Amino acid sequence: MPRTPEANQRIREAQRARILESARIVFARKGMEATIADIATEAQISLGLAYRYFADKEAIFAELIKQMVPEASEGLQSLLEMPGTPGERLYELISGIVGARGKRQALEAHQLLNHALDADAMPEKTRELLSRRYQSLLETMRQLIVEGQATGEIVRGDPDQLVAIMSACLDGLTRWALRDPEQFRTYVPDARIIMRLFQPSRTEMSNFEAP
Amino acid sequence: MPRTPEANQRIREAQRARILESARIVFARKGMEATIADIATEAQISLGLAYRYFADKEAIFAELIKQMVPEASEGLQSLLEMPGTPGERLYELISGIVGARGKRQALEAHQLLNHALDADAMPEKTRELLSRRYQSLLETMRQLIVEGQATGEIVRGDPDQLVAIMSACLDGLTRWALRDPEQFRTYVPDARIIMRLFQPSRTEMSNFEAP
Repeated sequence: MPRTPEANQRIREAQRARILESARIVFARKGMEATIADIATEAQISLGLAYRYFADKEAIFAELIKQMVPEASEGLQSLLEMPGTPGERLYELISGIVGARGKRQALEAHQLLNHALDADAMPEKTRELLSRRYQSLLETMRQLIVEGQATGEIVRGDPDQLVAIMSACLDGLTRWALRDPEQFRTYVPDARIIMRLFQPSRTEMSNFEAP
Repeated sequence: MPRTPEANQRIREAQRARILESARIVFARKGMEATIADIATEAQISLGLAYRYFADKEAIFAELIKQMVPEASEGLQSLLEMPGTPGERLYELISGIVGARGKRQALEAHQLLNHALDADAMPEKTRELLSRRYQSLLETMRQLIVEGQATGEIVRGDPDQLVAIMSACLDGLTRWALRDPEQFRTYVPDARIIMRLFQPSRTEMSNFEAP
């Protein structure tokens, strides 16, 4: 009995998913040295079959990153429209980022990105995609800071400076999570400490604020 | 007229300083690929003369790091004995670290350390020296946090957690300073924003503290 078009479609989708999952494992193990042949071997398919799904290793890599990195930017619009104060929504945003650092899959994505950046092997399209996603994340953060400054929840000051310092700290936290995921999960259960960067000063703390 | 022993000593010290300065330039340019021959060329001396001062490239590297990295740990003891509240002394400590990130020489030292770590080419003795200095920095920070928690200047909570999160953030700031020194100096004129990580909460901010 010949396969229906639907069954063929299902098989193709399963193959594609299998190739991507194998690529994830192989890239994590070998970094950008990995070849499409390594990926085919891991997926237990022929090299020819792998090429029927992806033009080259870069195409697999790009698709993989696209799948792995959405969580940081997804729902940014809905976050802006969420009920609650700007400070609460900002907490949700930062909390989501910090929480993702505790998850294996998100960490693997970061490791993969670092490999690609170190090897100067980031496909141009992927670089653009990531840069767009990162920019919209920063813009969302900036908007919530400005709104939170208006309500008095967020410390006064240049919002660009606050965004820049927060992203540097998040970058440091990411490196920590990559270096020692266990310790990171123990010490950073949530985003409360990091959110203090945005906390208005108490007058008692004025000694830290001067001169 | 033969040279006096004092004159000879001065000449030796000047040669040694010249080799180290040339090594700094060469390592910054070539990373750990640099050879002792490159360094001799930069110093405009013969290879044989360079070897009279240093046994090998690693010895030059180790001495260079030793010279370049003192500022973070020097004066830690005097900091603990400084007048002022624990919070003020902690501000001095963090401020010194952040301030150093704005300075060219300290940034070069970090770049050099990164090169060595990436190339897995850190001499064992230098690794130990750095690790000891970093540990005493963290211990000083921890002690001041504990004292500041007693005076109410520093937020309550596990001091190890506060130390760990602060060092992750400082690491992120360092990477930022390396990537874009100009922007870093514009946005991080001092340590006030970073010190907020240690700031006790205002009750008005309790929405960030729950649940």
